[in-house]
Amino acid sequence: MTEQNTEVDVVVIGGGPAGENVAGRVVRGGLSCAVVEDHLAGGECSYYACIPSKALLRPMELAAEVSRVRGLELAGPIDVPAVLAARDRAVAHLDDSGQADWIIGLPALLVRGRGRLAGDRLVEVTTHDGAVTRLRARHAVVLATGSVPVVPDVPGLAAARPWFSRNATSVRAVPSRLVVLGGGVVACEMAQALHALGATETTMLVRGDRLLGRMEPFAGELLADSLRAAGIDVRMGTKVTGVERAADGGPVTVLLAGGDQVEADELLVATGRRPATDGLQLDELGLELNGAVQVDDSMRVPGSGWLYAVGDVNGRNLLTHMGKYQARVCGDVIVARAHGRPDDALSLRDSADGRGAPQVVFTDPQVCAVGRTEEAARADGFEVRVVEYDMGRVAGASLQGERYQGRAKAVVDERRRVLLGVTFAGPAVAELLHAATIAVTAEVPLETLWHAVPAFPAVSEIWLRLLEEYGL
Amino acid sequence: MTEQNTEVDVVVIGGGPAGENVAGRVVRGGLSCAVVEDHLAGGECSYYACIPSKALLRPMELAAEVSRVRGLELAGPIDVPAVLAARDRAVAHLDDSGQADWIIGLPALLVRGRGRLAGDRLVEVTTHDGAVTRLRARHAVVLATGSVPVVPDVPGLAAARPWFSRNATSVRAVPSRLVVLGGGVVACEMAQALHALGATETTMLVRGDRLLGRMEPFAGELLADSLRAAGIDVRMGTKVTGVERAADGGPVTVLLAGGDQVEADELLVATGRRPATDGLQLDELGLELNGAVQVDDSMRVPGSGWLYAVGDVNGRNLLTHMGKYQARVCGDVIVARAHGRPDDALSLRDSADGRGAPQVVFTDPQVCAVGRTEEAARADGFEVRVVEYDMGRVAGASLQGERYQGRAKAVVDERRRVLLGVTFAGPAVAELLHAATIAVTAEVPLETLWHAVPAFPAVSEIWLRLLEEYGL
Repeated sequence: MTEQNTEVDVVVIGGGPAGENVAGRVVRGGLSCAVVEDHLAGGECSYYACIPSKALLRPMELAAEVSRVRGLELAGPIDVPAVLAARDRAVAHLDDSGQADWIIGLPALLVRGRGRLAGDRLVEVTTHDGAVTRLRARHAVVLATGSVPVVPDVPGLAAARPWFSRNATSVRAVPSRLVVLGGGVVACEMAQALHALGATETTMLVRGDRLLGRMEPFAGELLADSLRAAGIDVRMGTKVTGVERAADGGPVTVLLAGGDQVEADELLVATGRRPATDGLQLDELGLELNGAVQVDDSMRVPGSGWLYAVGDVNGRNLLTHMGKYQARVCGDVIVARAHGRPDDALSLRDSADGRGAPQVVFTDPQVCAVGRTEEAARADGFEVRVVEYDMGRVAGASLQGERYQGRAKAVVDERRRVLLGVTFAGPAVAELLHAATIAVTAEVPLETLWHAVPAFPAVSEIWLRLLEEYGL
Repeated sequence: MTEQNTEVDVVVIGGGPAGENVAGRVVRGGLSCAVVEDHLAGGECSYYACIPSKALLRPMELAAEVSRVRGLELAGPIDVPAVLAARDRAVAHLDDSGQADWIIGLPALLVRGRGRLAGDRLVEVTTHDGAVTRLRARHAVVLATGSVPVVPDVPGLAAARPWFSRNATSVRAVPSRLVVLGGGVVACEMAQALHALGATETTMLVRGDRLLGRMEPFAGELLADSLRAAGIDVRMGTKVTGVERAADGGPVTVLLAGGDQVEADELLVATGRRPATDGLQLDELGLELNGAVQVDDSMRVPGSGWLYAVGDVNGRNLLTHMGKYQARVCGDVIVARAHGRPDDALSLRDSADGRGAPQVVFTDPQVCAVGRTEEAARADGFEVRVVEYDMGRVAGASLQGERYQGRAKAVVDERRRVLLGVTFAGPAVAELLHAATIAVTAEVPLETLWHAVPAFPAVSEIWLRLLEEYGL
């Protein structure tokens, strides 16, 4: 075991999208940087989450679009090997050299191994051959270690070797019978993708009374209707009491309260994620964790002066784009502080996370939302008025396909007449969201939005309909 | 010939989208209204323009999407009769009873016939049986007569019975050989749609040096590449010197300067539209026409006190959504003035047309833009900086399909650091536009847009890339 010492301005633990963005920003700001990554540069998102899941979902989505447009017909079912091969290309066959080269080319130091805090501004990295490198940070250490799946406390679950999201997105042989535990984004996306790719018997076991529990209720309802219409068995209000798998490679049985049981070839557990703090030795610094690494709006751990956390590990919003956003804030604020410049500019504070982060669910129908739901807005004490509209009544939507089913909802702050939140659910609505994100973020008054004319006949005409419904 | 006299608060000549919206707004405001329509309630857009053209384009677009996604294959070429039947349903088989019922149900009076100005606040309508109805308006007369195609002055053209946009969108038998005169939106959309539906030999004869001449040059270039790759013969810089059709039903020959000629089964003339003012008797009121009916920002003809014009006929922007927008302004301002209320609120002025109206071209790739082009912004004296980005480098775009070709351009007012214009060109980018329309309309500072985080991996991440390119 050799021991090396390196000193840089900033050490980032975790080379996923958030960590990469911190590195990019601090190097741009004239600081030196080391990125510590234990697995793949590019992180969960690039290889096991956003990217492969969308690669698996896109053919399903497009096949659904074709089924709604007259004059086109598919030659047959989805060619699964072709889709898996495209997925493999999308994740660069798990070869991270492109992303590693990006980090190195910043230039920054890429240190492969497992990092942990070893003291004030000190990071210790154990590389895969057992060597230990000590990285001393002149200015800041940034935690960007991401998250790991939550494993529910169910008897027999671990022994039954369940799938987590990584297994689903990395699938090589699609099981014919699949049980999915959960009703959130990953559960819905993977259930629908794998069902379309051959998991003909797919069952979703949802604990709550609806899908996408954090979003407006109608979104989960529309999605549940679609999943069921496609043949997925969506069961709400279930409680899993045990899991059994008698033999390796044999079927898995999920036992439910009430005595029901579901047998399948694989069980996908998608019941949420938690900040990945194991092994960081945060406790030795006397940090209160509370699950996540708590940070202020400059992404700094209060009281530390030098420790920051961005992305899933700080628990603000477990979304790649929010992690990247936090990373931009964090990198820039570290640069400002390192140079002794003012550190309180608008761009040096996270003002987006608390407002309700934008999110897209890439199912069919797609669901997307930004800002507060009606429930959240009321809970936060706003004087709320809500407008909703059936998107199928928008001319542009009906031209997208027959039997267009969609709905939009806007949550208005009546006192200031600005939008607090917007939700769209319908086929291919993902790109409608950014208009809402701008309107919510910039607090554009409804009276101004009235003059932002949606082009006809785009689906975006929903904006006009919502404002008309409001009474403008 | 019988003569009737009816008095209402507002008379609208033209029952297209703009006229309908004026009626809707004034009736909502407590005024009585008569709508005069010579042909179909719902207008050009519903039966001969936006709606049928998009119904013809959608299968082509979706087939192109399928060709870029692995794992899906179409069973065969587009089923043309099925597409034409879907188009027929989209235009309600040219039955306007739904739209007529909507007008009547406002409630408003629907007067079928040809309207003309017969004096101060007086409209004379000749109905199809030759009867004349006189409509007296207590408050306002609104011209909403739309536009008609420009017929170029080319020897032999009229005698050759060319197609105009109506013939193309109403097509029942797709010609194998098609020549299209023009390079604007209608020319590009119809050339691509009809080519995909069987016009295997399609030739576009463009006078200028690029397609979509009013938009950013790169948009027309990308589109030309795509049209050519699909097999359309796109010729720039052509000058048509004559047209010949020897026999009804026989081929048509287009003669070009330089001696070339192109033979086809049909010739589509798509060289622009002009305000439809013929027969309105505007000259008798002493109005300077200048091609269009000039109006102020409340849509009123200066000096008249009672005459308004909305939609194509005022020449501001020949776009359905802008006509509808003007109609909302116009209807509301008429109501305010009729009730003696203040008439200078933000909502009672057209502030959108002069800024650069949003527009979508529903080709593959789609092109959409709002605000000023770089050229227009410079001509208007702004201190301009431009950022561009290759949309194929956005992760979300590459997941939409292989070989994604697209480009985005933002025009920044450097002094105020707000967007003056944004253009997107790429597959299915139409719904990206409204975010730009809001940003341009509300003049959201770039520093605020920086906190409007695009969801990953949506194509909307182009917003982040543009801002990063800018230097944020």
